[in-house]
Amino acid sequence: MLKMACCGSCLCCQCCCRDGETRTPEELINGFRYQALFILVAVTLAILGETHDEEDEILPRKDYESLDYDRCINDPYVEVLEGMNNKKAKKYEAVKWMLVFAIGVTTGLVGLFVDFFVRLFSQLKFKLVEKSVTECTEKGCLALSLLELLAFNMTFVFIASILVLIEPVAAGSGIPEIKSYLNGVKIPGIVRLRTFLCKAIGVLFTVAGGLFVGKEGPMIHSGAIVGAGLPQFQSITFKKIHFDFPYFRSDRDKRDFVSAGAAAGVAAAFGAPIGGTLFSLEEGSSFWNQALTWKVLFCSMSATFTLNFFRSGINFNKWGSFQLPGLLNFGEFKCPDGDKNCHLWTAVDLAFFVLMGIVGGLLGALFNCINRRLSKYRMRNVHPKARFIRLLESLLVCMATTVVIFLASMTLGECRDLVSPTTNNTTALVSDSEGVDATIKQFFCPNKTYNDMATLFFNPQEVAIHQLFHQDGTFSPVTLTIFFVLYFLLACWTYGVSVPSGLFVPSLLCGAAFGRLVANVLKVNIGIDIYSGTFALIGAAAFLGGVVRMTISLTVILIESTNEITYGLPIMITLMVAKWTGDFFNHGLYDIHIQLRGVPLLEWETEVEMDKLTASDIMEPNLTYVYPHTRIQSLVCILRTTVYHAFPVVTENRENEKDFMKGNILVSNNIRFKKTNVLTRAGEQRRRCQSMKSYPSSELRNVCDEPAVAEPGEESQDMLQQMLERRHAPYPNLYPDQSPSEEWTMEERFRPLTFHGLILRSQLVNLLIRGVCYAENQSSATQPRLSYAEMTEDYPRFPDIHDLDLALLDPHMIIDVTPYMNPCPYTVSPNTHVSQVFNLFRTMGLRHLPVVNASGEIVGIITRHNLTHEFLLAKLRQHYITI
Amino acid sequence: MLKMACCGSCLCCQCCCRDGETRTPEELINGFRYQALFILVAVTLAILGETHDEEDEILPRKDYESLDYDRCINDPYVEVLEGMNNKKAKKYEAVKWMLVFAIGVTTGLVGLFVDFFVRLFSQLKFKLVEKSVTECTEKGCLALSLLELLAFNMTFVFIASILVLIEPVAAGSGIPEIKSYLNGVKIPGIVRLRTFLCKAIGVLFTVAGGLFVGKEGPMIHSGAIVGAGLPQFQSITFKKIHFDFPYFRSDRDKRDFVSAGAAAGVAAAFGAPIGGTLFSLEEGSSFWNQALTWKVLFCSMSATFTLNFFRSGINFNKWGSFQLPGLLNFGEFKCPDGDKNCHLWTAVDLAFFVLMGIVGGLLGALFNCINRRLSKYRMRNVHPKARFIRLLESLLVCMATTVVIFLASMTLGECRDLVSPTTNNTTALVSDSEGVDATIKQFFCPNKTYNDMATLFFNPQEVAIHQLFHQDGTFSPVTLTIFFVLYFLLACWTYGVSVPSGLFVPSLLCGAAFGRLVANVLKVNIGIDIYSGTFALIGAAAFLGGVVRMTISLTVILIESTNEITYGLPIMITLMVAKWTGDFFNHGLYDIHIQLRGVPLLEWETEVEMDKLTASDIMEPNLTYVYPHTRIQSLVCILRTTVYHAFPVVTENRENEKDFMKGNILVSNNIRFKKTNVLTRAGEQRRRCQSMKSYPSSELRNVCDEPAVAEPGEESQDMLQQMLERRHAPYPNLYPDQSPSEEWTMEERFRPLTFHGLILRSQLVNLLIRGVCYAENQSSATQPRLSYAEMTEDYPRFPDIHDLDLALLDPHMIIDVTPYMNPCPYTVSPNTHVSQVFNLFRTMGLRHLPVVNASGEIVGIITRHNLTHEFLLAKLRQHYITI
Repeated sequence: MLKMACCGSCLCCQCCCRDGETRTPEELINGFRYQALFILVAVTLAILGETHDEEDEILPRKDYESLDYDRCINDPYVEVLEGMNNKKAKKYEAVKWMLVFAIGVTTGLVGLFVDFFVRLFSQLKFKLVEKSVTECTEKGCLALSLLELLAFNMTFVFIASILVLIEPVAAGSGIPEIKSYLNGVKIPGIVRLRTFLCKAIGVLFTVAGGLFVGKEGPMIHSGAIVGAGLPQFQSITFKKIHFDFPYFRSDRDKRDFVSAGAAAGVAAAFGAPIGGTLFSLEEGSSFWNQALTWKVLFCSMSATFTLNFFRSGINFNKWGSFQLPGLLNFGEFKCPDGDKNCHLWTAVDLAFFVLMGIVGGLLGALFNCINRRLSKYRMRNVHPKARFIRLLESLLVCMATTVVIFLASMTLGECRDLVSPTTNNTTALVSDSEGVDATIKQFFCPNKTYNDMATLFFNPQEVAIHQLFHQDGTFSPVTLTIFFVLYFLLACWTYGVSVPSGLFVPSLLCGAAFGRLVANVLKVNIGIDIYSGTFALIGAAAFLGGVVRMTISLTVILIESTNEITYGLPIMITLMVAKWTGDFFNHGLYDIHIQLRGVPLLEWETEVEMDKLTASDIMEPNLTYVYPHTRIQSLVCILRTTVYHAFPVVTENRENEKDFMKGNILVSNNIRFKKTNVLTRAGEQRRRCQSMKSYPSSELRNVCDEPAVAEPGEESQDMLQQMLERRHAPYPNLYPDQSPSEEWTMEERFRPLTFHGLILRSQLVNLLIRGVCYAENQSSATQPRLSYAEMTEDYPRFPDIHDLDLALLDPHMIIDVTPYMNPCPYTVSPNTHVSQVFNLFRTMGLRHLPVVNASGEIVGIITRHNLTHEFLLAKLRQHYITI
Repeated sequence: MLKMACCGSCLCCQCCCRDGETRTPEELINGFRYQALFILVAVTLAILGETHDEEDEILPRKDYESLDYDRCINDPYVEVLEGMNNKKAKKYEAVKWMLVFAIGVTTGLVGLFVDFFVRLFSQLKFKLVEKSVTECTEKGCLALSLLELLAFNMTFVFIASILVLIEPVAAGSGIPEIKSYLNGVKIPGIVRLRTFLCKAIGVLFTVAGGLFVGKEGPMIHSGAIVGAGLPQFQSITFKKIHFDFPYFRSDRDKRDFVSAGAAAGVAAAFGAPIGGTLFSLEEGSSFWNQALTWKVLFCSMSATFTLNFFRSGINFNKWGSFQLPGLLNFGEFKCPDGDKNCHLWTAVDLAFFVLMGIVGGLLGALFNCINRRLSKYRMRNVHPKARFIRLLESLLVCMATTVVIFLASMTLGECRDLVSPTTNNTTALVSDSEGVDATIKQFFCPNKTYNDMATLFFNPQEVAIHQLFHQDGTFSPVTLTIFFVLYFLLACWTYGVSVPSGLFVPSLLCGAAFGRLVANVLKVNIGIDIYSGTFALIGAAAFLGGVVRMTISLTVILIESTNEITYGLPIMITLMVAKWTGDFFNHGLYDIHIQLRGVPLLEWETEVEMDKLTASDIMEPNLTYVYPHTRIQSLVCILRTTVYHAFPVVTENRENEKDFMKGNILVSNNIRFKKTNVLTRAGEQRRRCQSMKSYPSSELRNVCDEPAVAEPGEESQDMLQQMLERRHAPYPNLYPDQSPSEEWTMEERFRPLTFHGLILRSQLVNLLIRGVCYAENQSSATQPRLSYAEMTEDYPRFPDIHDLDLALLDPHMIIDVTPYMNPCPYTVSPNTHVSQVFNLFRTMGLRHLPVVNASGEIVGIITRHNLTHEFLLAKLRQHYITI
């Protein structure tokens, strides 16, 4: 039967029609050449497609909000600080250390839980199926075996998919979400307990269900949720979990803990505490905070060693020793003891590694390109439909995967001698402490031989990686090629299906097959003396690097996973080359998914050309502001009719305006100095209004406006007029006695406003709810005062203004916001270059950056949306047009 | 003779009088108890001394200048930027990568050079001396051997000392200096080619001369110099080295390259590329810059593998393989192959590691305390004297060290059986690929036995560390104790002598002896089954951590040096405990030396209590300012009579003042809003003047004034008056027609100044030199324009104003500084809390931070000196007094 089916399904060009070991090397190489050509053509096509793809670009969505990383300190906070001496600060610090330790341990335990059940289910499944296959090979009831496998896999994947239907955010690897969160974007539901449960249990079933996914990404996400949730001591999912622990109720603390948790996740997944720390630095940190980094490293170490402790204890029954570092580890790379001429790698190999890096980058770019198109297709055609369609898709993927691995093992595998001549006793610590030899599968093959395809497909993926790294001379080049192509396509299809699914392990496995193929070709066909394991490792690194394009942290994670510092240089060079090659075509897969979701991520730096713009070019000049003392009715009106999350607190300066215009040119003696850097909002608005008119309004709307406001039919109207109307309509009685009237000139509307501070929407709502106000005939000193604890009690879900019962409030009372506003946020002058603005914003983790001119008046405000790459690009285009 | 001398010199309490192996364990333990008591008493005494030591605190010196890390972009720069498109930026980037690679390779080669010659000289020395000892033991001419050793060592140390006399900055480890530099403090001569040569050659001779110093610190310093110097393509030491390469001529680029170089130094020294990167992040970086970090890691990798390549090639004649990672590596820790019950460490051991961490912290604190006192003594009594006194001191230290190691080996060593029963064949890669057994010394001992003390003393320190880590059952507890005490005292004496001297290796060796001692006690006396090598390693980590108090980077460096990821947890916990214990008593040794030098280092964060202060409390309100258009004579006068490095560019706003006062309280309806955050310089000055009067003037002078101004007799005078006079005297004709007159009121003197930008001293001098000015009857547009290249040509040593030939300049010409000033530096409002100010300053790497009030007027300026811990502390004290 095996022989009959041998040339049956001609899946992939020429590479299937083969005849055991009898083909000459020349033929083989020719085959490869065709294949290489095929791949190159595919890559080229994909890239051509990519460049023509620009038009349906997805712009950052406006409904993502930033986190408040910057501290807003004012008197109520200072009250806390007055009591906060160094002793208390130390206690606070000690609590942080304990929490960080707890996060690490919990993450480690989550890893243990996932790993234990994955192992249990997989073993059960493979044992039963294997038994059935062995029996059926003789009896000829292989279809039954396939059905059995299908039943297992589909059940598992069904459970995982149901879990994701309950909490859709739990789909995917979670790394794009965590990256966005650490970048400072609030993504709803991403750090909730329900997400955690769905993710952790879901990934367990997905992996057990035989899909080509890893559990590393979800582990990182789970760690991050543990970090976010544990220090809060309360949960929204389970309302009963609620302890009185009113600390760390701020975005800043939460984000710090999330960094620690994400790092712990990486540390547990790969046994790489340093890599984990660097991961959370690379993805998340704005500035290098030594105290935080030290805590993050401690958290990672706790996670790694908790996992290590329990796994060593459970698997070897050696409690107290530490022998199984991470969920994924690569075993020990070492030369056979006696062999003095064996080197893991030499200087000559570096040249091959560079080439492999290039190919890895190309393959990664291809993978990303295909997956991007697929994801877009899904967004358009699958997501809008009923939810169960997604469930069907995951079941379809599961079925396809199962059938493919079964058929491929049956028909495309090669029977090789069981004791391969070059096998050495590598002391690799495979999952259950048996050597790699134990995991070889004999499927459909006569005694004393084994099926190399089945060995790769009918094992957990970690074991397959081990096989490729450490089993010498086991796999035929053809098997490796088929395996690579099948795996590549299926993994690409799988990532994005609505199940929790990581990307690391599939990429590593795929890359390892590629690397092993290169090693086989070099060793057997060209005859260079190399260490195959190293090539497999480098192939894995190259492909993974080509897909995810991470740099520092990935280097360190791989070094730590191999536990061999001498691999530092080759891994780094490979990753570097792969990244550069890949970046030539598209972004990393995580970034692609972030982009597809329209998250306004801020990159590391702006491009050099952006420095032609200044703060005044990119700021939002239409402000919604509050006065220091405002009537409740005005406040409620402002809060109900706008979506802004912070309002500048200003006083008007009406008389100054004309003086100022006069004083704009200072005449002293015969030296004239023009105050060029004094900019008024009115002037700026006028200037921009002119430049806007020369600009297609549709594009402008795309980047400038809120989607809710711009009705489709009004594009031809004067944008400015529209904006002005929108801006003033909502405030019939903004300031007790100064209601803006329609007769106002533009100068009056954009009158100079002296800037005093910033107040958050949540703070205003809080003041309203707690009735912090005073009557008109009283002094503002009679207004009650809220403590810090009262201000932050509702974190992180502050009540909405629309839920407020207005009947309880006297609309004529007045609120004095000055004790609660942030009186001294960082500000920039209107002439500041974009790079400087960006740097300040990104580094300090700001949410609102007021632009204040040389005479202390606020002329605009900059938020995350004004700094996204797409917005800057649009502004730059506009800048070139006006020049 | 050996037996005769056995109880000869009673150095250390009871621990010397011993009789081979015949003592009972009880006696031994008793002896240890006494010793532990003795150490505890010593520690307590030292700590008591430490706390009473506060009064002669060394305040940060005012003559250290900051680097300009923030970019000053204005039109001439933008001119460059206009031409700078993304393509050019990429080219620029490529050049940076190449330079970083070059820095890495060069640093690696420097390491190779130092290592090669140290090895050569040491081998020569030890071979000859050993031969002489072997001969003389029979003939009884041991004094001759001692003399021979003395001659070698003194010659080597003499050469090293002479080199340091040539360039005094080359003394010590260099890490405090590099740390200061990366923190943003300019230390003269620290990155010059001459310093590099003296350091690299000097350290070679110091180490070869047998002093208890390491070559790691100097390696880091050398790397940093390579980083600073190589991209400049010119040298001040050798004027002939000068290529036309006008890039990277700014403090910012230079500091980035120095980070890379320092990291490369660490990487070469320890074979720890990741540790090196983290070192330069931990010590240097203000914000996490991904692109830079990636380059730094590449640079570190280049250094490690360059060194590795050449050392593998030279030592094993295996070119192309990479087998010898760093100059210092710890060999391979592994259990004997067959032993299944052997673990490197278990959970139980962690408790011992914590205890060892505590003891290591105490010992480190003691070491630091003694060294601090010694350094202070040196600063007072040695440094003011003629330079050759320092030379004599280093020779004295050398002599003492030589005599001690000779006598100790002769009299205090113990003869042990050559084939110790538990010796296993650890495959550690000792320097010359022979096992650790090869480095055992037989000195003065009968055949088949060897001298354990001589084995430690008569080997290079790296070999001794290897012995302690990997040689089982070789050293008697008494030998270890004596060795530890002797080494501790001598190393402590040596650090600070004017030779290039690192601290890592001596600390590691000292700590390894301590750890080995603990292991011996636990194993032999208590009978716990442990792996001694791990304990030696942990001891080394504990002591080193206690001395230097580094955290993240040290953890990673040690993990990488052992090449064993499973040591992560124990090393981290030990270092953490050691640091916490040590911090209880004093600072790390590097910080102590930075403090002794009076460098105004900025820590990571301010203390919580400091937030009671605001920017206006700590700023310098007396400003020396320039006008946008200034006469040359005024400029020259300002430049010659002040030492400031930047001047705010301001215009006056005299009429505004009274309007403003009126407008200070805005009355609208019956709501009053006091503009509390509008602060005038005059008001601030008045307020501070009052608070100053209630404050002892001597202390104030210490922190507020320039030392040059405050004459000793004038303390009783009114401080403010004095300041005012000083402030105005130098500018007889500051602004063409507005010379300040003596009749001015204080309000007039501190009149409101609208802030327009900052200009650097170097820029002003440059403008003067190049004659950038215009005549009174012309327009400012006739003023010539300087390009970016012309502005930066003289970097880093801009000409001094006092070298300027005034005859060439027409003092009545006018300079328009506006095209060259930085028009939009970061600013803060006067009410900003200190923590925010600090954060902005530290993170953005600022040098001058203008304080601008709500109406755009400059009220003060903040520099590094206003943010040092000592200054803030003084201000806080003042704050409490005025309350």
